[in-house]
Amino acid sequence: MKENPLSVWKTSKYFHHLKSEEHDEIARETAVTIMLNGSQYATIVCTPKNLREMIIGFLATEGLIRFVSDIKEFTMDDVKGFAYIELHHMPDLNGSRERWIGSCCGKSREFYLKQDVQTAKTIMTDMDISTDDIFALMEQFESGAETHERTGGVHQAAIASNHAIIASYIDIGRHNALDKLYGYILEERLKLKDTCVLFSGRISSEVILKVSKIGIGIVIAKSAPTDLALRLADDLNITAIGFARENGFNVYTHESRVSNNTNQDTNLS
Amino acid sequence: MKENPLSVWKTSKYFHHLKSEEHDEIARETAVTIMLNGSQYATIVCTPKNLREMIIGFLATEGLIRFVSDIKEFTMDDVKGFAYIELHHMPDLNGSRERWIGSCCGKSREFYLKQDVQTAKTIMTDMDISTDDIFALMEQFESGAETHERTGGVHQAAIASNHAIIASYIDIGRHNALDKLYGYILEERLKLKDTCVLFSGRISSEVILKVSKIGIGIVIAKSAPTDLALRLADDLNITAIGFARENGFNVYTHESRVSNNTNQDTNLS
Repeated sequence: MKENPLSVWKTSKYFHHLKSEEHDEIARETAVTIMLNGSQYATIVCTPKNLREMIIGFLATEGLIRFVSDIKEFTMDDVKGFAYIELHHMPDLNGSRERWIGSCCGKSREFYLKQDVQTAKTIMTDMDISTDDIFALMEQFESGAETHERTGGVHQAAIASNHAIIASYIDIGRHNALDKLYGYILEERLKLKDTCVLFSGRISSEVILKVSKIGIGIVIAKSAPTDLALRLADDLNITAIGFARENGFNVYTHESRVSNNTNQDTNLS
Repeated sequence: MKENPLSVWKTSKYFHHLKSEEHDEIARETAVTIMLNGSQYATIVCTPKNLREMIIGFLATEGLIRFVSDIKEFTMDDVKGFAYIELHHMPDLNGSRERWIGSCCGKSREFYLKQDVQTAKTIMTDMDISTDDIFALMEQFESGAETHERTGGVHQAAIASNHAIIASYIDIGRHNALDKLYGYILEERLKLKDTCVLFSGRISSEVILKVSKIGIGIVIAKSAPTDLALRLADDLNITAIGFARENGFNVYTHESRVSNNTNQDTNLS
């Protein structure tokens, strides 16, 4: 499994009634099966790049590990697409994928899986970000989206400080891109103070849950949110920013982290 | 659970340094847990609309049913988000979600789950579609995408004849939109001769597998394919058309089903 996210495919292109043949670059997709302490745990369809980060992030999202040091052994069979993981302590999986039903009376968190109750956390760290920083970061994020530009087929997730992107990952699956980012953060033991997540896709409840598990308080996405995602973001103290484009964005939750500065170079007259 | 795919959220909108507050329409998202013969089978996060169709399509995709008549009882608890399904005969689930490893020598199908080996089928029915039909169908498909237009947050899947869309479903999850379509087709016992699938999203391997399980030979998508999806489409005799827009599209596999007609109204001079 070579770490090239692109493949080539002979394509017939129609424009009105004109036809041409070209060799198009296509996003690669592969299946990776995670063997956990000897048993099949999950099969993930993904972009064959940064698989180690993805699997570490996936294990953490599932609540199976908290640190990379919880992994005793990690072996990849790139040809067959298998990852063999041995954990020091195998957590009790019983019921972690079961539906979680919160209290019926009064406000309760809208988690839907038991594992999320154990792993999603209210964000306590804080960070301020200015409108200009958001515009500048999204511009950097866009210019880094090379594979997406070429194939139209991948999502991108990045961690950034106020001023620059620290690391960026791509995948055909939105959740995989976030898992790769999570795996990187765990491997590098990255400090999360004053960081935010940039994301190319929509803000679903699963995206907010992942960002909360990573432990970051701001997510800036290019696309639309769902209502369940926003209720979770509200509850977990995450600032959810959507439709972030080069000159505008929407803030849906915890707006106090966003400061509307006036860039002295900007002439609105 | 009211069947309204939209909710309203108070949103702060920034355009450059100008800020306004609006009540935005947001795509709704809810969790539905499928109880199968008394046990939790899966929890699906989805748009709370056409849940019956979605669950029927999901059960068929998973290889648990072939016809709606395989379901003995179907009860929805809309408030809690639970569907209680009793099947006449519970199939042996043992290993259906296990990784499937094809023959190592020679060409073998690139399925990755055992359940797909049992349920995905090579398309034997045939259909011709003209370039003009494709343009006209995509225009109809676009004009029907009202919820997407308003929220930017949902996917759409439709079944169409050469000339008109027969039925169309939306969901925040691309696979759910296809499952709703599949459920509708099974409930209505729709004839699949001379039909195609229209899809708003990307063509991943899972999309091709679903289309093959439904039993339709042409998929026309607005976005990009992956290489694994195209290899599967090639193998399963599915015509995969991507980047379908108002005036152009790409054909990746089994192009013989597409005829390049010259619309007499078109003046290319």
